[in-house]
Amino acid sequence: MARTMKAFVMKRIGEVGVVEKPVPEPGPNDAVIRTTTAMVCTSDTHTVAGAIGERHNLTLGHEAVGVIARLGGAVRGFKEGDRVAVNAITPCFQCTNCLRGFSSQCGGLLGGWKFANVKDGNLAEYFHVNSAQANLAPIPDGLADERAVYCTDMMSTGFMAAEHANIPIGGTVAVFAQGPVGLMATVGARMRGAGLVIAVESVPRRKDLARRFGADAVVDFTEGDPVRAVLDLTGGEGVDSAIEALGSAGSFEACVKATRPGGTISNVGYHGHGESVPVPRIEWGVGMGDKTIRTGLCPGGAERMKRLMRLLETGRVDPTPLTTHRFPFADVERAFRMMQTKEDNILKPLISFER
Amino acid sequence: MARTMKAFVMKRIGEVGVVEKPVPEPGPNDAVIRTTTAMVCTSDTHTVAGAIGERHNLTLGHEAVGVIARLGGAVRGFKEGDRVAVNAITPCFQCTNCLRGFSSQCGGLLGGWKFANVKDGNLAEYFHVNSAQANLAPIPDGLADERAVYCTDMMSTGFMAAEHANIPIGGTVAVFAQGPVGLMATVGARMRGAGLVIAVESVPRRKDLARRFGADAVVDFTEGDPVRAVLDLTGGEGVDSAIEALGSAGSFEACVKATRPGGTISNVGYHGHGESVPVPRIEWGVGMGDKTIRTGLCPGGAERMKRLMRLLETGRVDPTPLTTHRFPFADVERAFRMMQTKEDNILKPLISFER
Amino acid sequence: MARTMKAFVMKRIGEVGVVEKPVPEPGPNDAVIRTTTAMVCTSDTHTVAGAIGERHNLTLGHEAVGVIARLGGAVRGFKEGDRVAVNAITPCFQCTNCLRGFSSQCGGLLGGWKFANVKDGNLAEYFHVNSAQANLAPIPDGLADERAVYCTDMMSTGFMAAEHANIPIGGTVAVFAQGPVGLMATVGARMRGAGLVIAVESVPRRKDLARRFGADAVVDFTEGDPVRAVLDLTGGEGVDSAIEALGSAGSFEACVKATRPGGTISNVGYHGHGESVPVPRIEWGVGMGDKTIRTGLCPGGAERMKRLMRLLETGRVDPTPLTTHRFPFADVERAFRMMQTKEDNILKPLISFER
Amino acid sequence: MARTMKAFVMKRIGEVGVVEKPVPEPGPNDAVIRTTTAMVCTSDTHTVAGAIGERHNLTLGHEAVGVIARLGGAVRGFKEGDRVAVNAITPCFQCTNCLRGFSSQCGGLLGGWKFANVKDGNLAEYFHVNSAQANLAPIPDGLADERAVYCTDMMSTGFMAAEHANIPIGGTVAVFAQGPVGLMATVGARMRGAGLVIAVESVPRRKDLARRFGADAVVDFTEGDPVRAVLDLTGGEGVDSAIEALGSAGSFEACVKATRPGGTISNVGYHGHGESVPVPRIEWGVGMGDKTIRTGLCPGGAERMKRLMRLLETGRVDPTPLTTHRFPFADVERAFRMMQTKEDNILKPLISFER
Repeated sequence: MARTMKAFVMKRIGEVGVVEKPVPEPGPNDAVIRTTTAMVCTSDTHTVAGAIGERHNLTLGHEAVGVIARLGGAVRGFKEGDRVAVNAITPCFQCTNCLRGFSSQCGGLLGGWKFANVKDGNLAEYFHVNSAQANLAPIPDGLADERAVYCTDMMSTGFMAAEHANIPIGGTVAVFAQGPVGLMATVGARMRGAGLVIAVESVPRRKDLARRFGADAVVDFTEGDPVRAVLDLTGGEGVDSAIEALGSAGSFEACVKATRPGGTISNVGYHGHGESVPVPRIEWGVGMGDKTIRTGLCPGGAERMKRLMRLLETGRVDPTPLTTHRFPFADVERAFRMMQTKEDNILKPLISFER
Repeated sequence: MARTMKAFVMKRIGEVGVVEKPVPEPGPNDAVIRTTTAMVCTSDTHTVAGAIGERHNLTLGHEAVGVIARLGGAVRGFKEGDRVAVNAITPCFQCTNCLRGFSSQCGGLLGGWKFANVKDGNLAEYFHVNSAQANLAPIPDGLADERAVYCTDMMSTGFMAAEHANIPIGGTVAVFAQGPVGLMATVGARMRGAGLVIAVESVPRRKDLARRFGADAVVDFTEGDPVRAVLDLTGGEGVDSAIEALGSAGSFEACVKATRPGGTISNVGYHGHGESVPVPRIEWGVGMGDKTIRTGLCPGGAERMKRLMRLLETGRVDPTPLTTHRFPFADVERAFRMMQTKEDNILKPLISFER
Repeated sequence: MARTMKAFVMKRIGEVGVVEKPVPEPGPNDAVIRTTTAMVCTSDTHTVAGAIGERHNLTLGHEAVGVIARLGGAVRGFKEGDRVAVNAITPCFQCTNCLRGFSSQCGGLLGGWKFANVKDGNLAEYFHVNSAQANLAPIPDGLADERAVYCTDMMSTGFMAAEHANIPIGGTVAVFAQGPVGLMATVGARMRGAGLVIAVESVPRRKDLARRFGADAVVDFTEGDPVRAVLDLTGGEGVDSAIEALGSAGSFEACVKATRPGGTISNVGYHGHGESVPVPRIEWGVGMGDKTIRTGLCPGGAERMKRLMRLLETGRVDPTPLTTHRFPFADVERAFRMMQTKEDNILKPLISFER
Repeated sequence: MARTMKAFVMKRIGEVGVVEKPVPEPGPNDAVIRTTTAMVCTSDTHTVAGAIGERHNLTLGHEAVGVIARLGGAVRGFKEGDRVAVNAITPCFQCTNCLRGFSSQCGGLLGGWKFANVKDGNLAEYFHVNSAQANLAPIPDGLADERAVYCTDMMSTGFMAAEHANIPIGGTVAVFAQGPVGLMATVGARMRGAGLVIAVESVPRRKDLARRFGADAVVDFTEGDPVRAVLDLTGGEGVDSAIEALGSAGSFEACVKATRPGGTISNVGYHGHGESVPVPRIEWGVGMGDKTIRTGLCPGGAERMKRLMRLLETGRVDPTPLTTHRFPFADVERAFRMMQTKEDNILKPLISFER
């Protein structure tokens, strides 16, 4: 096995590049994976812009699958060479928050997010996995890497948005924003039995994909007040559930306004600006309207991954229309640049590690 | 409006026929519906066989839609001539059990079931609806009666089975028996996001329909132990959720055995025989295995009906493959006879009230 | 029975007084109650100050018990002369929101609140009860009116705050503000099994009552940052559940900040000011911290009332320390004035209708 | 540190004794605890009687606290000499069932139960703890070992019974059998806000303790049908929740019969006999009565332990009246014999490891 590897890093705020790094070593509970397929996430671009503060030569990326290269001595049931998927969130499953059932908050608020945050990410030839026993998920034979990789973040996050939304069978749902996560939330809303799914979006490619992924109606917020449109589409009632998949104050407010009394607002968007996020007072029922606001971060762990991969195996979901562009790892920086600019309406660039 | 009408009744245990009866009168909170479309249910044949004791000239039937003929003085928001669907279960929504959220147990165990039990049913030219404010559900324009009528029992009951089964997104489900309710439970399991749905059935037509309605695998219990087959299909784990849609002790036992620790057994089958229904002790974890057993009876009320009809409107569900036979009301007795014998593999006979 | 009665009304914004009014008449589903005991609520003073807009000669009050004076023809199981309690919230239990399980939102946002809002309240010799079948709750023999009256709002609202807070057995809870509702939330937190209840309050009488009602610690926010104090009392973790019982932006923000990742903020305070209520962005986990925000309005209906009165019967709760003052109905205006000014540290004034 | 230690073992079915054994060694994720205080459980007597099959020189016991003697290299945040409590159930928190949230079913049905089942128990001078990071719970200063030890099984199991019972605030609960677990279930029912707790028991000391621990009524099943008595105490309705804490078919049947439609039966008793456990068909609503049956096994892990110990610290619960007898470890066999015969109405014998 090689001693060094190529990794795509954030050199400092605003600066990226491919560097040579040592291949990581596993501790007794860890694994090291040889990457085969990865994706760039918009949040990588936020990180490089400074969203989580300064970092030096930190490997980027949190969406990847690969093959076990080395295993810690205490990990059971796997062997080197096994194909595995690893969720973007890699909790320890042993700490207070994990034991409470909130593994994405492992060790503290948002602490389950380790890749490209508190440790190197996986846009590299090899990557390190902590708590491997719980975080390695075997990829079933016959399931291609380029499909499995969608379980590591987009599907897990988008479907969580729908699960948190407490959708009754036959209920109504509005999904605000149809980026990759929002589109997977649209799919998730269908999968929880929504009777009417309204997607709110303005970019033509995303509007088309929303319909393709199962939205019954698409509201273009550039053509009028989307709250008004959602109310009109629901006979004035508002939706049972609204999903915020953008991370803007305005979109969040619209979610609260578009939701019925007793309904649920499921936030999945990353809110990057301002001291606070406003809840519109009157439409919130002055704090008494039985509207519930939920939040969450991509659920990780092997069992979650297994279930998501099962949905791919039985053909329930095909996320690959999100793969708008493909690159070899040698061109990862170009993929990253396109995610920064959304050039050519890029949604998800697939990175292949060929040898 | 006519003073008398034709009604298909249970004259006494074992004897049925069409008789002339007075058209019912509404009290202040009631409505009287002119029936347009109805279906016969297997439970009607159980009733005639004596399952709920003796009855005299009780009108049969609990699955029907129609047009409002007369309205009680305290009912608001409807007018005569409106097309409406009425669930098989018509709770008062005012009593102790209704206020607790268990409206199918209105007034006492199974007390929400009033049609063809404690009052006349709706295999008649007109039928009476108690608590009309809560029980009348407008049928949307463009939704045909022959589709809407499936919301009155088959869809509400079958989907409840899936809702009670606590299916995780991507989870595994086994549905034991694929009669009309079991088939709708199969659809319901898909609608809650199951990753793998296993149908257990032996009748060829029902096996075919199971696949058509979305089962990923069909286990024929005449060809081997179905518990073994379910375990094999789930890598030895058992399913997250098992649905009992038959009402037999053996099928119920198989459900408990086929379910993982921590899983849920959702019973929807009517258990008609014996002092007790056996829970297999060892596979139940000697009472400590975190397996949950739930039960329920067709959820009623206008909001439920509205949601179910929405699923028909947006094309999520098409239950009409269940309509294997059609009859004018003049031939209702023949339809009933076929349901007794299951002649010609009948599933649901649709009864049209033409004028 | 008398034709007219005395009623304490809001004549217009800012003006109150006792006037003569016709005794109300029951429709078929209604009842008329002869009031025996009532209480004034701080929200009555908000109403008079204009919180819900202009009203003319609207009877105030929503916390009262009494004796059935007249019954509508369709109401079953009660008779004139029965002692009954009626919740402040009187839903129809028949409309869309009621059928969805959100009866406090009957007919629309906050629509279950009818007394002294869209119909006359019960600070009058007689009062009218809609949907009487579901809203009349018999007061058990041996339970005094002056205790039962606490079930109509303070206990139902305060306990709901605790129920919504999703408190684990042995968990930690902070209750922000210890007015009558906050104090009942403190009791409720104990009743759901909290291991540590922290009350946040500064008024000495309320701090004393907080301890008497079961708070383990009292934080005086005039002596330092209450968020800091709550974190210190929980080893830096924050609480599992925070209850907002004041209705201020600052208190709401403090709740979000004082709650652990994965915890719940249960809002019960009425938010009367501003366009929006701010969620602090960072401590909310930028919308991904698994913190849930719930809201609600006093749950009504006979079953709820029965359960609350049971807690009084078996001695679980004694709310009467809240009764700091007593008045005959002839002095109701003085009671109201004291509630406006909180003179003499008044908490709840009990109004007796003696004859 | 010593190389060998004394351990109280099951030599074979029917035979026990104190033997010398090597002190266990910790692996990287383990700990070894020097025992200070333990208790004998009735289930130890079942094990010796053969309930789980043959064992050879297996150390008995699963309720113990002590001091960390040695720590594995991968365990963080603890040091040798720390006082710790360890739950009877020690899940890995990394396997499929653990990740699903059912840690008591770690690795398979009931697999979280390792002590005195698949590995040595803790009625020994030292004991081994797997997955120490998640299973070691620091005992707060000021909390005596003889109180903390109740968190390891009796409180965790008994309170779980109440948590599973889905008790509404002010609801009614019947607890069948008042052994140590049943008594803690009675306490738990109070802690979840039950308005009426009915204990079913016949042994005088246990009846007395039931009242002391908060039962409002005690039904002696030797004096009449307990189902009848429970119905009478609830106005004919039955209870919202019934807890089975005995493990007998008759008691389980009574639970189903005594529970209202829509209520919950929470089983915590170990069912040791028969092919199956019978659900009474009619009272179960022929499988449609909205009655839910739940089961479970003592929840483990450090967070659970922390919450339970908090309840001791703030004085919510005092389980020590269960400590009817005390023994030095030298007399452990005598304590065990008394648990076999229930001589002198023994409930829990406390074993002290003095040096």
